[in-house]
Amino acid sequence: MTPLKDTIAALATPPGIGALGIIRISGSETIPIVNSVFKGKNLLKAASHTVHLGTIRDDEGTIIDEVLISIFKAPRSYTKEDVIEISGHGSHYVLQNVLNLLILKGARPAKPGEFTQKAFLNGRLDLAQAEAVADLIASENASMQQTAMEQMRGGFSCEIGKLREELIHFASMIELELDFAEEDVAFADRKGLIELIHKIQTLIASLISSFEYGNAIKNGIPVVIAGRPNTGKSTLLNALLNEEKAIVSEVAGTTRDIIEDEIHIDGVAFRFIDTAGIRETNDQVESIGIKRTLTKMKEASVVIYLFDLANESVDSINKQLNNLRTSGVSCLIAGNKVDKANSPLKDHLKEESAVFISAKNRINLEALKERLKTFIRKPSRPLDTIITNTRHLHSLRQTTEALNRTLEGIKLQMSNDLVAQDVRSALHHLGEITGEVTSDDLLENIFSKFCIGK
Amino acid sequence: MTPLKDTIAALATPPGIGALGIIRISGSETIPIVNSVFKGKNLLKAASHTVHLGTIRDDEGTIIDEVLISIFKAPRSYTKEDVIEISGHGSHYVLQNVLNLLILKGARPAKPGEFTQKAFLNGRLDLAQAEAVADLIASENASMQQTAMEQMRGGFSCEIGKLREELIHFASMIELELDFAEEDVAFADRKGLIELIHKIQTLIASLISSFEYGNAIKNGIPVVIAGRPNTGKSTLLNALLNEEKAIVSEVAGTTRDIIEDEIHIDGVAFRFIDTAGIRETNDQVESIGIKRTLTKMKEASVVIYLFDLANESVDSINKQLNNLRTSGVSCLIAGNKVDKANSPLKDHLKEESAVFISAKNRINLEALKERLKTFIRKPSRPLDTIITNTRHLHSLRQTTEALNRTLEGIKLQMSNDLVAQDVRSALHHLGEITGEVTSDDLLENIFSKFCIGK
Repeated sequence: MTPLKDTIAALATPPGIGALGIIRISGSETIPIVNSVFKGKNLLKAASHTVHLGTIRDDEGTIIDEVLISIFKAPRSYTKEDVIEISGHGSHYVLQNVLNLLILKGARPAKPGEFTQKAFLNGRLDLAQAEAVADLIASENASMQQTAMEQMRGGFSCEIGKLREELIHFASMIELELDFAEEDVAFADRKGLIELIHKIQTLIASLISSFEYGNAIKNGIPVVIAGRPNTGKSTLLNALLNEEKAIVSEVAGTTRDIIEDEIHIDGVAFRFIDTAGIRETNDQVESIGIKRTLTKMKEASVVIYLFDLANESVDSINKQLNNLRTSGVSCLIAGNKVDKANSPLKDHLKEESAVFISAKNRINLEALKERLKTFIRKPSRPLDTIITNTRHLHSLRQTTEALNRTLEGIKLQMSNDLVAQDVRSALHHLGEITGEVTSDDLLENIFSKFCIGK
Repeated sequence: MTPLKDTIAALATPPGIGALGIIRISGSETIPIVNSVFKGKNLLKAASHTVHLGTIRDDEGTIIDEVLISIFKAPRSYTKEDVIEISGHGSHYVLQNVLNLLILKGARPAKPGEFTQKAFLNGRLDLAQAEAVADLIASENASMQQTAMEQMRGGFSCEIGKLREELIHFASMIELELDFAEEDVAFADRKGLIELIHKIQTLIASLISSFEYGNAIKNGIPVVIAGRPNTGKSTLLNALLNEEKAIVSEVAGTTRDIIEDEIHIDGVAFRFIDTAGIRETNDQVESIGIKRTLTKMKEASVVIYLFDLANESVDSINKQLNNLRTSGVSCLIAGNKVDKANSPLKDHLKEESAVFISAKNRINLEALKERLKTFIRKPSRPLDTIITNTRHLHSLRQTTEALNRTLEGIKLQMSNDLVAQDVRSALHHLGEITGEVTSDDLLENIFSKFCIGK
């Protein structure tokens, strides 16, 4: 791993032209290095958390930029080291020159995520919190933002901490028995131990189950709109998307072309899977059972199945409903063209708890959205903590497996040292989440995904 | 024009994902607005030039971001108003939410360049300095940067100021005579006046002539490589560009795909004009005089004319040299394939002060570059100030015209009030440069070209 003592520097703002650009530098040599190129206040004498106007000059005295210097003295900084942020004019060329000058004076270009890695190694953040920093930067909707913020501020780490405490308590009971093994004393009440593990497993299971929600937050909930041709599937998609676009464009400066196929309900993204191919093929009129459609429908978390209330027959509808039942895909049934509906059809579909809408005339779309919301499977218990990270999911699953082995060991009355080994394994996997247990590879892997300057 | 009293806010860093993003807010309500959404230090009591860690929260208490607040109290700020910079995590979504919250609390989204416009209107910068801020942000090479920096720091404004002083002195002489017109007293020595105007005109002329260099700095010097087919034009271009790319890629993090057809010598860009069409057409073998080639060559500030020392005949070379002389295009003559040269040819070209190179084997390319440098027409006098802005050029030319009319008036012994009018006109045009004379349209036009947040 890279030596912590290096003083590192990087551009911390996105590349490109802007009003301002920030260069960040951290390490024991930060203040002397910056002071050697800064003309203004003597930074060696500057107090922490103060800002100073001046110029950056090269050895010939040529002014490279007029800048503001913010100084943060160890340990009151992001990395717990001396940190300076140089706020200059947002020209990539100028910023690059300032950065090169700092490197000439002894700083090293920072690797991706290296500032946060220092924050972790110096104990300012644990590993789960550090990962949340990257999630926060990548967040694109309210739920992602809130989940990342909660994790960054230590909510998740706190939950894991509690679990570890319980497990350490359990381990100490077992190990105590080991110490007195020859005397064959049982300090730990076996029934109590099993209850404790069950309790821990319940907590872990609820964390694991929150991942489905967490993943939906991070990646969106996949939705397919299905139904016979000309039932209004495209019109519905456009109606939902257009409304979204109108909302989005109200927010000044938001550029959101990327979410063309997403709508946000209560801060969660519903991502529409392209079924253009399905919509345009005509030879599947009567059969929704063909392979491709079904695959798409099974991939989706939500299928909106659309009936045409004005033009379909009761017979056709029954056939489709039967097909749906056989396929095992559960759908949100919607009746379109409600303003031209023929009532027997409508009555028939009422039994299917259908939502009656008109995509074209925007009738009842809010009710449809309310129904979509029910597909956001929120965690079963009121849980502050939501897992969004597959690494955490993996560690939690491994913890569960180790605990299962522990239970099995107790049940089979295996020797305490074997049981203790499984408990230690469970502790190890929990520790991986917050970084009590790490390896260089793991850290390398996590921080290499960060942007440079963070 | 927009009322100055508004408190304005904008994202000041480039859009996109980065480690940090900065929102800037300026105006009398800055501190109360930010304080109403900030949890941490009470900003109403914070000293200027201090930094404070805390959270931005909405009315429900939901944390939107963990931020650093830098506070700059009027008049010790960029705009001379109260300014706060909020440094948050570089997620566009999160930053947009913080910005929206500030707007909800009473700030107005800033228009392009509005912070700098406030700095101008509040007297922190004059107009030429404000324009240099935009130039500095757009700067892409050392000369652009230094010229913009010099102008931003007031070098150019100082030159213009001196000229104005001289002119005001002149004007006061003329106007004094006007006051005593009935008594027919001549306070101003006519010969002295004429000398003064000549002196001012010389200064302005040198500023005007610096524009050619300034424009080259800003837009690059256009270069064409010409010559018969198979003389190695493409090879030379690639050799020059490849070397440049190698240099560029040494600088960590520099992304420079845009300069594919540029090389930089002493911080000035030489921009190669695409002559692909010329190179690939075969039917012009003997005649370089065809219209299209000539047009390209005349557009260029530099023409490198390449001869093939190994394969061309003395006859062919003489023909081409004659064509060049007839066309009136002055060229940098280069002999390529020097390592396989036949010596009579080489001797023949020596008279043309040719540079002998091998593009393929990279022989003597440095000498060619040295010769290219002679095409950078530096200003005739050692001039700190270089004009790069067509608006300034236009105003200087109008000043010269007004001064010519003044001279004409004196020569024709026109009445002093007419002469005074021309002098006032000259003063007006000089004043436009630094902004003593402005109009809303002019300001609108200048600042609308800035980026938002500057």
